[in-house]
Amino acid sequence: MFAVRARSMSGPNEKFQSVSIERRDLGPRDIKIDIAFAGICHTDVHHARAEFGTTYYPIVPGHEIAGTVAAVGGEVSKFSLGERAGVGCVADSCRECADCRQGLESYCRVGKVLTYNAIGRDGLVTLGGYSESIVIDEDFAVKIPFSMSLDTTAPLMCAGITMYSPLRHWKAGPGKRVGIIGFGGLGHVGVQISRALGASTTVINKTEMQHDDALRMGAEEFRVTTDPRTYRDLADSFDLIVSTVPASFDLDSHLNLLGQDGVFVNLGVPEKPLSIEPYSILTRRRSLAGSMSGGIPETQEMVDFCADHGIGAEVEVISADYIGEAFDRLVASDVRYRFVIDASTMAD
Amino acid sequence: MFAVRARSMSGPNEKFQSVSIERRDLGPRDIKIDIAFAGICHTDVHHARAEFGTTYYPIVPGHEIAGTVAAVGGEVSKFSLGERAGVGCVADSCRECADCRQGLESYCRVGKVLTYNAIGRDGLVTLGGYSESIVIDEDFAVKIPFSMSLDTTAPLMCAGITMYSPLRHWKAGPGKRVGIIGFGGLGHVGVQISRALGASTTVINKTEMQHDDALRMGAEEFRVTTDPRTYRDLADSFDLIVSTVPASFDLDSHLNLLGQDGVFVNLGVPEKPLSIEPYSILTRRRSLAGSMSGGIPETQEMVDFCADHGIGAEVEVISADYIGEAFDRLVASDVRYRFVIDASTMAD
Repeated sequence: MFAVRARSMSGPNEKFQSVSIERRDLGPRDIKIDIAFAGICHTDVHHARAEFGTTYYPIVPGHEIAGTVAAVGGEVSKFSLGERAGVGCVADSCRECADCRQGLESYCRVGKVLTYNAIGRDGLVTLGGYSESIVIDEDFAVKIPFSMSLDTTAPLMCAGITMYSPLRHWKAGPGKRVGIIGFGGLGHVGVQISRALGASTTVINKTEMQHDDALRMGAEEFRVTTDPRTYRDLADSFDLIVSTVPASFDLDSHLNLLGQDGVFVNLGVPEKPLSIEPYSILTRRRSLAGSMSGGIPETQEMVDFCADHGIGAEVEVISADYIGEAFDRLVASDVRYRFVIDASTMAD
Repeated sequence: MFAVRARSMSGPNEKFQSVSIERRDLGPRDIKIDIAFAGICHTDVHHARAEFGTTYYPIVPGHEIAGTVAAVGGEVSKFSLGERAGVGCVADSCRECADCRQGLESYCRVGKVLTYNAIGRDGLVTLGGYSESIVIDEDFAVKIPFSMSLDTTAPLMCAGITMYSPLRHWKAGPGKRVGIIGFGGLGHVGVQISRALGASTTVINKTEMQHDDALRMGAEEFRVTTDPRTYRDLADSFDLIVSTVPASFDLDSHLNLLGQDGVFVNLGVPEKPLSIEPYSILTRRRSLAGSMSGGIPETQEMVDFCADHGIGAEVEVISADYIGEAFDRLVASDVRYRFVIDASTMAD
């Protein structure tokens, strides 16, 4: 075991503290990543504030990790010292179930270990990316090309793959019309990916403020939910809609924007059940689907795709001391478009 | 115009009456079908009793029609006198929209005309199959091979295609595990089709009574909703579930029976909205979809498929005087498995 600096919360209403945490000694297939940047995902807030199931305190959030390989175990074959690596939501899985064998580690229900706030194979609570370094099995890290900036790449490890996976699974591409609801951390990456996949992409957002940014990032159209014309003009027009909105909203009026055989993918987990009129899906053979982040092979594919297309998050780099304020601003949707922590400030 | 005998209701609480109705003179592309049998679909009850939107009285229900071609217009090319023909839910459509061009006439939103209780192109209310004969454009009739019995084939025109269409669309076949919820008019045909498509088929039903019938018709397994073991044993196991249940029920516990990427197709229109927990679809990338009956080309494909595989509804043939009682028994789920009216009794 060795000590690294990190930021943790010791209770749902506590402030972040600078702490020392233990990382495991490298096993033969482990790599140590010196973290350069860690993105702040909305899920981090939910876990840290005990709004989702169980939280193990003290918690060190962070599952959007980008850094440099600083040590490798004796059997490591994928990474060399000095290469760049990323870690997302999943730090381990059973590797044997049907899902793992298909590269769908994020759906493994036998032995999936989340990157933080979970119990690892060693019986210890996992601690995430709000820290100086992390030790992980090389199979659960992805390679980040040197052409990418680590600050804008870190958020791709969750926000990027969470958008890329449904866009690919439901075949966003040339000739397809894609709607993305919400233009925040996920949405602004999703627009770039959808456009790069060749799909005609429309953003549907609650405020007009992000209009210019959305068009700059590749949206063909930007519509607001407060304008009734949005629902009239766009009715029956999309092949795929991906909703990044974590709160409850009127699903029927948005399902009605799908054309024949259209799919509405809900990524959010609102507090209330999803409620829809049967006719909203029946009349056009529509589907309401859910999706989580993708597995490791798809995460690598996503990173390579983003490298090829110059895609990255637009970020506000913050110091570790600012995490608490960043949480509050994130909850208030006051960020363009992702906070990333400069991990060199962890030790301050 | 010419007169034919029919059975109609003049108000939501009235009894069926023997009446004379007018059919249009044959246009160049019309055929006249002398009806042999007309199935009684649950939708007929809803429309006749004004439980679905607008009902135009007097109503002549019936969209599961099988009979013999008794006259043909001058430009008819698909049918000859004496051949057998079937008519389902859709009697006309715009023929020009994207849906119609793909053979999805049942999804046409420009000019779809239902076989009864709709306004036809001539401005008159359409009158359905509870009658001696019907006049229809040949494009909206399908050919019924002489190898099929008309009584057991009539219900295929709605129940059959309503099951066949989602089973085909979501690729029921060898290696796939299909669940069918409800073993009534739709379910008992769906089991036969699913089995003939090569899928492993399980029936989930509210009572044990239909167990033997389901296995005889091709189900591998029959489970009841009242047994908690059903939900434990079948969890995470289906690729496709088709629910034929028209009432509200706990969707989450049934979505949980789907494996990764599984699709739950809801055919029913319960009074309350469909309500599901976000995690029920999120955790396995599942979908909740809706489906209506298929278009004309797929209906022909279904009839031919059923002919090839010896599939037909199991029917209770009734006289026209019995329709009212049949409605009551249908609502009470007291039918094995479809009532069909012997149209030769219309004139009584």
